[in-house]
Amino acid sequence: MRIDILTLFPEMFSSLEHSIVGRARQSEKIEVNFHNFRDFATNTQKHVDDMPYGGGQGMLLMPQPIFDTMASFPHDNARVLMMDPAGRKFDQAFAEELATEEQIVFLCGHYEGFDERIKTLVTDEVSLGDYVLTGGEVAAAVMIDATVRLIPDVLGKKASHEDDSFSSGLLEYPQYTRPEDFRGLKVPEVLMSGHHENIRKWRLRESLAKTLRLRPDLLEKYEPNAEETEILKGLEAESVVQ
Amino acid sequence: MRIDILTLFPEMFSSLEHSIVGRARQSEKIEVNFHNFRDFATNTQKHVDDMPYGGGQGMLLMPQPIFDTMASFPHDNARVLMMDPAGRKFDQAFAEELATEEQIVFLCGHYEGFDERIKTLVTDEVSLGDYVLTGGEVAAAVMIDATVRLIPDVLGKKASHEDDSFSSGLLEYPQYTRPEDFRGLKVPEVLMSGHHENIRKWRLRESLAKTLRLRPDLLEKYEPNAEETEILKGLEAESVVQ
Repeated sequence: MRIDILTLFPEMFSSLEHSIVGRARQSEKIEVNFHNFRDFATNTQKHVDDMPYGGGQGMLLMPQPIFDTMASFPHDNARVLMMDPAGRKFDQAFAEELATEEQIVFLCGHYEGFDERIKTLVTDEVSLGDYVLTGGEVAAAVMIDATVRLIPDVLGKKASHEDDSFSSGLLEYPQYTRPEDFRGLKVPEVLMSGHHENIRKWRLRESLAKTLRLRPDLLEKYEPNAEETEILKGLEAESVVQ
Repeated sequence: MRIDILTLFPEMFSSLEHSIVGRARQSEKIEVNFHNFRDFATNTQKHVDDMPYGGGQGMLLMPQPIFDTMASFPHDNARVLMMDPAGRKFDQAFAEELATEEQIVFLCGHYEGFDERIKTLVTDEVSLGDYVLTGGEVAAAVMIDATVRLIPDVLGKKASHEDDSFSSGLLEYPQYTRPEDFRGLKVPEVLMSGHHENIRKWRLRESLAKTLRLRPDLLEKYEPNAEETEILKGLEAESVVQ
């Protein structure tokens, strides 16, 4: 996969140099290119933003530097993403979709807004969540992280994504590692019983109970099997009693 | 504000060195401390993770290094945040709440899960969104960015947050800057009319129309005034006709 990032702050992307994304670059599973669009500004002061027509606070990125940066590298079949609170919400399904692409381009504004005409270059307006950031850089870093880990062979065994919370559709059960007793805080006995079937049942029940308690919205989309339906009935009966 | 980050990868946080967050550190509006909890592991190999009791893929962070790191710095009245898909969804209201705190601590796991007992140290389990990341680092960087910009005097005039999409409750109207005609793409005439009242009306209508089209959920929480109610009626009538 080829990733192109248009930004005034390429130095904010150190997260792409380390750990899993860093290794994916070293092993050439992904290639990351930064384009500082200030380099493409044709005005003598190298300005990239200007005041909004009609008045108002804040500055807007001008179309020229962005259009000319985009024209400087190939991106014929690329997804071109712009952060916009009005855009499609970024979620696991979106990450899975992006992970199959050959090229993704990120347009990162930085506290400035975008001149509306820049949107003609964009295939996807995307929102990381209902909050405001100083720029698109940290949001792009999150989207790249979520996407790259889904590319085949990027994650090693140690970090398999088969057990991901959102791939099963349920929240994860509680997990424990050594020691059995940490300063008085103990591991549930069933987990040390060696009884695989009891462990499986305990985990399934904890997973369903946690999802029911904290994210009932996930259960609305979930299709439980017979065993899970039975457990859910029991959990709902308990919660009525309490 | 004091921010403490427990992480194995402090070098992934370059976004906190630049731009608005970087300047807030230089002007001592915030102080950021990194704690690499591997330094606190008491085992000779400096391991911080181990296999889950009861079996299963993946590794879990052990309680000891995290507990001892937390004991190494003051955090009596701090908010202690851990990323968890089951946690409270991070949004603008959450960022505004955090912006009033004196100290925030972030526990960043990295593809490992957390031993459940670590949660006894935590005040808030928080989710950035419904997607899986390789670690908590990029998520923490987003939360810090969204929070720090709300601290008084951190944003300059140039980047005022009075017009933020989520502070008005509506999506932002389209904006344009120079030139008037960019390669055939033109700025709407009203914005160059100099007629302030017409510009205000056009922007309000565009803002309401965009919110109605893309994020009707925001309008459910919004309390329109008389003028806005009138415009919304008109927009709804139009969309029925189309």
